[in-house]
Amino acid sequence: MADLATLMADCAATVEKTMDLLLPQPDDAEARLFEAMRYSCEAGGKRLRPFLVMQSANLFRVDRRCAARVAAAVEFMHTYSLIHDDLPAMDNADMRRGKPSCHKQFDEATAILAGDALQALAFEVLAAPETHSDPNVRIELVKELSQAVGGHGMCGGQMIDLLTEKEPELNIGAITRLQRLKTGEMFAFASVSGAVLGKGSKRAYMALHNFAQEFGLAFQIADDLLDAEGDPEKTGKPVGQDAAAGKATFVSILGTDRARAQAHLLIDQAIRALDVFDETADPLREAARFVVDRTN
Amino acid sequence: MADLATLMADCAATVEKTMDLLLPQPDDAEARLFEAMRYSCEAGGKRLRPFLVMQSANLFRVDRRCAARVAAAVEFMHTYSLIHDDLPAMDNADMRRGKPSCHKQFDEATAILAGDALQALAFEVLAAPETHSDPNVRIELVKELSQAVGGHGMCGGQMIDLLTEKEPELNIGAITRLQRLKTGEMFAFASVSGAVLGKGSKRAYMALHNFAQEFGLAFQIADDLLDAEGDPEKTGKPVGQDAAAGKATFVSILGTDRARAQAHLLIDQAIRALDVFDETADPLREAARFVVDRTN
Repeated sequence: MADLATLMADCAATVEKTMDLLLPQPDDAEARLFEAMRYSCEAGGKRLRPFLVMQSANLFRVDRRCAARVAAAVEFMHTYSLIHDDLPAMDNADMRRGKPSCHKQFDEATAILAGDALQALAFEVLAAPETHSDPNVRIELVKELSQAVGGHGMCGGQMIDLLTEKEPELNIGAITRLQRLKTGEMFAFASVSGAVLGKGSKRAYMALHNFAQEFGLAFQIADDLLDAEGDPEKTGKPVGQDAAAGKATFVSILGTDRARAQAHLLIDQAIRALDVFDETADPLREAARFVVDRTN
Repeated sequence: MADLATLMADCAATVEKTMDLLLPQPDDAEARLFEAMRYSCEAGGKRLRPFLVMQSANLFRVDRRCAARVAAAVEFMHTYSLIHDDLPAMDNADMRRGKPSCHKQFDEATAILAGDALQALAFEVLAAPETHSDPNVRIELVKELSQAVGGHGMCGGQMIDLLTEKEPELNIGAITRLQRLKTGEMFAFASVSGAVLGKGSKRAYMALHNFAQEFGLAFQIADDLLDAEGDPEKTGKPVGQDAAAGKATFVSILGTDRARAQAHLLIDQAIRALDVFDETADPLREAARFVVDRTN
């Protein structure tokens, strides 16, 4: 396989082009809304969830144009969640990836609406016939994504996060559940979406689901480690924010050494879950290793 | 037919029961989110959009349980839009239907998340096999609803509304477009949903679509008239809020007499659009008359 950085860059370029085609053009009286949607979607990032979609789809030889649409839908959904999470009433973050967050660049009302419209756009893209010729596949994608982002998924996880922000006593089980809802369900959707698009076997679907569970937690632990001891020049944010906020994290509970060991253990398990696939799954295996070794 | 008030009350009871079954139960750590979703969904209202869904479905002899699920999805979507519209950054409304608005009863972060999760729930309900046995029908519902509430629909309309709030010079074309996006597209979805569920003819679909266009505008003019000269005891809000805010409305541009005449003209056209249906459509005809004659 080509090296992971090249694959990820290729994937990001494909998905960003697809997103650009799917996002409304800023004309008409509501142009400001579309500008805000585009501003946040174009803010970059690793496009990790789209990468999972594209690589998962590749396992089942899914048409790349179809996969890119699902990847774009996932990134629209992710972007909406970042816009709303950054709002003053939520995490009150002025900056996102080195640029002003959406409500800072525009205003709060526009940011709320841009997030709302991006959620609707994600479902609109999945529902369109261009995403897959079989309506059973499209409706399955809508069903799974709506569950992944709803009250028992991403929104529920963000609610728990807000409620437990000031509880340094949270136990490991509670944090694991919080993260499974807040970020894990979306990773799971991205990872299994290829099996849905390609009508993979139940066994292949479950392998990808199990991969995503371990991958998601390892990703979060790595995030906590970067917050605790990362290089601010590389991460783009000050070190120790979680600790300063009195927030319980995997690192505050386990300590850095045990947290790092746990992340590596989870990644080993994630990679083992992919044993049912041949070397076509190597980019997913590489991505898993990258996620715990990354420096930003 | 039974009188309209009875039909509407029956419909509201059916839909509220369905909503209750579909809303998550407040347990687990994220219970507060579910409480907020339920609080706003249980705040009452005329349930006018669900009524349009149920009556539209009745024209095509759709199973009432299927129709009630679509009606519930529409009301979840409408409720999410009210929660977000009431936020301080938007219309900053402390009260809604005589009760504290969601962010007043809970807090802003919870209200934002409750709205987000209700939007996801609406799509989840439409995507579930219980809503219709044919995936083509379910995906068509998802497609149409996602378009009705997105950037070229409800969110776009609310954006224009915020941008033009201080422009008393808005012309009638601009206001018509604003309202068509902000409220009209959802009325249109509710009105045609029965034809989608019941696989009605293109002619029947278009008749309901045309009905909804006129109905939606008449509804909005009636709303503006109530704001300008309604009885605060009946409407539950002070008179003259739009004028005090310097907001352009159908009434500020046309004056009350011409606005009232226009609303009646639109309703006549809406009723005429239903000529392709027999007396089964009488409740829709009655609802149209009610909408311009209502006092609250």
